Amino acid sequence: MKIAVLPGDGIGTEIVAEAIKVLDALDLPFEMESALVGGTAFEAHGHPLPESTLKLAKEADAILFGAVGDWKYDKLDRPLRPEQAILGLRKNLGLFANFRPAICYEQLVGASSLKPELIAGLDILIIRELTGDIYFGQPRGRRVAADGHFPGAEEAFDTMRYSKPEIERIAHVAFQAARKRSKRVTSVDKANVLETFQFWKDVMTEVGQQYPDVALDHMYVDNAAMQLVKAPKAFDVIVTGNMFGDILSDEASMLTGSIGMLPSASLNAKNQGLYEPSHGSAPDIAGKGVANPLATILSAAMMLRFSLNQEAAAQRIETAVQSVLGQGLRTPDIFSAGTTKVGTAEMGDAVVKAL
Amino acid sequence: MKIAVLPGDGIGTEIVAEAIKVLDALDLPFEMESALVGGTAFEAHGHPLPESTLKLAKEADAILFGAVGDWKYDKLDRPLRPEQAILGLRKNLGLFANFRPAICYEQLVGASSLKPELIAGLDILIIRELTGDIYFGQPRGRRVAADGHFPGAEEAFDTMRYSKPEIERIAHVAFQAARKRSKRVTSVDKANVLETFQFWKDVMTEVGQQYPDVALDHMYVDNAAMQLVKAPKAFDVIVTGNMFGDILSDEASMLTGSIGMLPSASLNAKNQGLYEPSHGSAPDIAGKGVANPLATILSAAMMLRFSLNQEAAAQRIETAVQSVLGQGLRTPDIFSAGTTKVGTAEMGDAVVKAL
Ligand SMILES: CC(C)[C@H](C(=O)O)[C@@H](O)C(=O)O
Ligand SMILES: CC(C)[C@H](C(=O)O)[C@@H](O)C(=O)O
Repeated sequence: MKIAVLPGDGIGTEIVAEAIKVLDALDLPFEMESALVGGTAFEAHGHPLPESTLKLAKEADAILFGAVGDWKYDKLDRPLRPEQAILGLRKNLGLFANFRPAICYEQLVGASSLKPELIAGLDILIIRELTGDIYFGQPRGRRVAADGHFPGAEEAFDTMRYSKPEIERIAHVAFQAARKRSKRVTSVDKANVLETFQFWKDVMTEVGQQYPDVALDHMYVDNAAMQLVKAPKAFDVIVTGNMFGDILSDEASMLTGSIGMLPSASLNAKNQGLYEPSHGSAPDIAGKGVANPLATILSAAMMLRFSLNQEAAAQRIETAVQSVLGQGLRTPDIFSAGTTKVGTAEMGDAVVKAL
Repeated sequence: MKIAVLPGDGIGTEIVAEAIKVLDALDLPFEMESALVGGTAFEAHGHPLPESTLKLAKEADAILFGAVGDWKYDKLDRPLRPEQAILGLRKNLGLFANFRPAICYEQLVGASSLKPELIAGLDILIIRELTGDIYFGQPRGRRVAADGHFPGAEEAFDTMRYSKPEIERIAHVAFQAARKRSKRVTSVDKANVLETFQFWKDVMTEVGQQYPDVALDHMYVDNAAMQLVKAPKAFDVIVTGNMFGDILSDEASMLTGSIGMLPSASLNAKNQGLYEPSHGSAPDIAGKGVANPLATILSAAMMLRFSLNQEAAAQRIETAVQSVLGQGLRTPDIFSAGTTKVGTAEMGDAVVKAL
């Protein structure tokens, strides 16, 4: 079980260290190797995703990723910015299936912006296609407009696209995931405006016929953004494209109020996966020992489940996290009166102890 | 003052009737003419935006629009579906500047999904570009993929694009609107991934230099979707493209919990405008006399302000709406214990009385 460890920037190092503590405590035969990624890799090697890091990632069964990015890299040319490392890994490893659970932990209901009755018990799974859509579509760039409102003016453009097999494979992922849950899939599109998403809807419907036991419905993305606020618990599995998924998965995770708790997994066809917390690199609190490591620890659990075939170990970690929450331990981001404030390392230690 | 009245489908007829009641009560020299639009126009003329309706709209100073759409038209070919009428009006009249206020009325704080302290006093203005972006970009369609993950497969595609003058003109609208408010503009983009929105950000920054008194900041769309949930009151004016604006303006209006109260305006360079409620045609309650006419009545107020140069009359309507809320009158969508439930027509009558 080869794990590439890419802590990245900001709080990445701190939170990944805690996840490794937890993995070590499982006493399983992992082979772990670390490499630089993001801004720190740019500083050392002149590129956010150096060849050596990419090679390590490709040869691993799974990647444990922290976070990348810092305001100080904002002025760099786009191809050199930290987040290009994430896009590069997704593309080079073909990580097309992104799993973003939005779960509201019983003990953290109060952290949500939403009224408790709307959010308590929330358990949605957003499945975002991650290697297609307007993120990677060619052509893109700048040019002189040939037509439109201002022919002759300078314009910039991008191409949104999805091919049938790309939609089919993410559809299968969604329907199969729904089978293990409440057997409901909401496919989010903008078929009323976009050719790409009329096609998406058509293909989803077609694939859905192979899953007569799973209920499929379709929703426009603007409506989905509303319904997530109005009645988030009405959703079970949401499947959508790369761009809409970027927006909706972040909206959904913020609904819980405890994004510091939410893991994610990005898988390819061989179940190789990249596992990272749903939150960012939080440069403002980096190095202070206050970041919440639980999302990264729970990402490690997803890694055990999806890429390393260690379901029992995954469940041990998840139970241990539940248990530290039950003990009232909280990093500052999820702290509330009556609970015990702890730092990053203490939280990691507590999870190890609870194992 | 020529007003084209396009009630449309579903509850459109009922809510527009109340707005007209209110306009009539102002005793101003309006010339109003009605026409069919949307599904009802398709049934009568075979097209959701008949030539005669478009002509009427073009020749008017302003359009008072109800809503379009019904499940029963879902099976029609896309060009014949009701929502194409809206897209056609926007395009043909060049209505590039969409104003979508998200206001939380003091008396309706309880209707929100959000905790009262997060939403009370909310007053955001979302300015959405409405005639560009991937909504209208060419080429678009289906074809055989020449490259990408599955060359040779069937694919669908769309083109996202913005030209410099298109971004400039919506930027000016946003900065000028901000000058009348708290002088803060948040431009929402996805510059870390899209060429179109790197350009958007560059041009916004450039235009911003002409407004040194207005603070401009930039935010990625995924982060904006989160911050709207976390701390909506941190925003003042948000300016963004057509697609992101579609999603964020709906999310923001649902945050208030009372979308039945929210008007909208879509203007062109000559201040001709289309005015419509932010909500849809609600076919499930059509004809029952229970729809909330206030968003449409407030849209008529915006019409008086922006297109008809009748600021005093606009304010009279807005004050009257505040007053009926103060009297405790509520349509079912905003009803809560201790208030008085009224129907569509009663609500319109109450506004007239309060004028
Ligand atoms: C950093 C950025 C390119 C990335 C994306 O848009 O996919 C991020 O927002 C995410 O969701 O992982
Ligand atoms: C009906 C649809 C085409 C339209 C849009 O996407 O613009 C609607 O959602 C809106 O926001 O007015």
